[in-house]
Amino acid sequence: MNFSPGPATLPLPALERAREELLDFAGTGASVMELSHRGKEYEAVHEEAIALVRDLLPVPSTFEVLFMQGGATMQFALVPMSFLLPAGSADFVVTGAWSEKAHAEAAAWAKAVGGHVRVAASTEAQGYRRAARPDEVDLDPSAAYVHFTSNETIHGVQVLDPRTRFGECPQVVDMSSDFMWRRMDITPFSLIFAGAQKNIGPSGVTIVLVRKDFLERSRKDLPKILQYRAVAEARSLLNTPSTFAIYLVRNVLLWVKGLGGLEAVEKRNRAKAEALYAAVDADAGFYRCPVEKESRSVMNAVFRLPSEALEKAFVDEAKKQGMIGLKGHRIVGGIRVSMYNAVEPEWVTALVAFMKDFAKKSG
Amino acid sequence: MNFSPGPATLPLPALERAREELLDFAGTGASVMELSHRGKEYEAVHEEAIALVRDLLPVPSTFEVLFMQGGATMQFALVPMSFLLPAGSADFVVTGAWSEKAHAEAAAWAKAVGGHVRVAASTEAQGYRRAARPDEVDLDPSAAYVHFTSNETIHGVQVLDPRTRFGECPQVVDMSSDFMWRRMDITPFSLIFAGAQKNIGPSGVTIVLVRKDFLERSRKDLPKILQYRAVAEARSLLNTPSTFAIYLVRNVLLWVKGLGGLEAVEKRNRAKAEALYAAVDADAGFYRCPVEKESRSVMNAVFRLPSEALEKAFVDEAKKQGMIGLKGHRIVGGIRVSMYNAVEPEWVTALVAFMKDFAKKSG
Repeated sequence: MNFSPGPATLPLPALERAREELLDFAGTGASVMELSHRGKEYEAVHEEAIALVRDLLPVPSTFEVLFMQGGATMQFALVPMSFLLPAGSADFVVTGAWSEKAHAEAAAWAKAVGGHVRVAASTEAQGYRRAARPDEVDLDPSAAYVHFTSNETIHGVQVLDPRTRFGECPQVVDMSSDFMWRRMDITPFSLIFAGAQKNIGPSGVTIVLVRKDFLERSRKDLPKILQYRAVAEARSLLNTPSTFAIYLVRNVLLWVKGLGGLEAVEKRNRAKAEALYAAVDADAGFYRCPVEKESRSVMNAVFRLPSEALEKAFVDEAKKQGMIGLKGHRIVGGIRVSMYNAVEPEWVTALVAFMKDFAKKSG
Repeated sequence: MNFSPGPATLPLPALERAREELLDFAGTGASVMELSHRGKEYEAVHEEAIALVRDLLPVPSTFEVLFMQGGATMQFALVPMSFLLPAGSADFVVTGAWSEKAHAEAAAWAKAVGGHVRVAASTEAQGYRRAARPDEVDLDPSAAYVHFTSNETIHGVQVLDPRTRFGECPQVVDMSSDFMWRRMDITPFSLIFAGAQKNIGPSGVTIVLVRKDFLERSRKDLPKILQYRAVAEARSLLNTPSTFAIYLVRNVLLWVKGLGGLEAVEKRNRAKAEALYAAVDADAGFYRCPVEKESRSVMNAVFRLPSEALEKAFVDEAKKQGMIGLKGHRIVGGIRVSMYNAVEPEWVTALVAFMKDFAKKSG
């Protein structure tokens, strides 16, 4: 029972298939990771993974689907490099550790080449306990784009709801920790990126969805590997991609499809989160979720216990019962329960039972 | 029998171990790719992989060993971004397709931010048939660095021999296709990079060796993910690395160690290359290696047959006999036999026998 915040648990059928084919993929006598990325066997996997993202989310033909490397942190650099032209400006909605980092990286780039970044809103003064409210966002209408984080993994804050928009300029969304946990309309956004290692695969591959008209605005004078347009033109085969990681994304998305697609996955995810938060609220004198109710993350539930000593005992005892990955991030402490797509509902049931026992025994 | 140019064949014991542990790594009940990169189980793998690179090559303590993402192509961008300061200049020794690309990417960066790149030597006029000779290199003594490619994979040209130096300024070496095939003294070089997917692992991880004193010269005002110094300070855990790819690098290097280290591997590699080139020369009327003898690559032997139709028949017939990955790169055509570390000597023996037969039958 692996509640790790990422790299996170993967669906067993996706891993079992990988194990079965590890020494002989598609009758080649070789592992998929030993095959040329230009050969027909790998190319079929590559195209299938892209087609599954398109089909499941869904992603309309006005968007490109890219596989890149370097994680969300690389995107924190590439987005300003591509779209924050000298003398231009970009807005940031800061709601936790990840949007803070994105802002800092863009600021470094702006300083290096000219250009500005603005904090259009920040909930830091509120202790990152909720999403930014529309009335507290001060947007620059001429911004090249506004950047926000759809789910703050560390602080357990869900920022994006289906109506979230920050003004009229292009919306850049870091969806690393809540990518593809529900079917959604992505057309209001211009660029979405996500490291695979939460919901859809292992670390080493980053998915980028970018509107073709937004892509047209990107800088053309950078090294090609830093240009979304060059990656798009090469169908993410500009150079050797993370072939095995993309193969696993394919396997994971086939599992999603088998579950009934993202509507079914959303239902499953919401049920897990409801059960978990109900357990927190049921023992409200013992467990305390710092996040305001309407901003509680479906993917990452964070809560505190009465003392750090009890938090340590909670993590240690849960581990003895086979539940791992529950320690909160070092910058906030406490407990974090990550319930990505591949976390089985029964694991949450077991954790909820453990929480009740632990509160009774220690409260 | 997989002679692919990369992603290339991996040692069977490294893959078998991965298969065995795929669902349960180190007694965790989870795959190594499902574990936190901050947890002790993964960290042990990470440190062991670094220690093996240090021990086998060897890498002295004056160098950092980094694991990055994006392949050599990303390094083509990051090296000029870090070391080619505005108004500075860098030299390129161009000996084939890969050094051409490195030069083009650096030129794009120089154009974007100011700075110059120079071609200090080029063997293009000679059809990229040999390494650059010391007397034909026009170096700028004030260059920030000189960049060269130690082995041109596509053209089958070995550029680096143990005495190769281009002047006195810092030497940046792209060793992607001949990294760790022999034990060597790396101290004359300032920065070495290599995608793992030829000699030491799958795609998705890039190894960088950088002298600490050279690192000190790198730019500090870029986004952190683009800064070697930030990656070094974080021991390649600045953000989530390609954990599974690094785990496989560890497995592959344990296999190298088991073979007797890089002296033993070099002996094995030289024997394979000698057998292969002997077969080419034995039927010199039929097979023709365009590369001058003293520059023939140990890793990638390229040769032509009398016609493209015969080349196609060669590839097709070899495939029927279980030998794959022999087609030359599309920009040069012909046949390419990649004989990286994990290619077994018996495979080369079988290929040599096939070559003799094929020449007799078709010549």
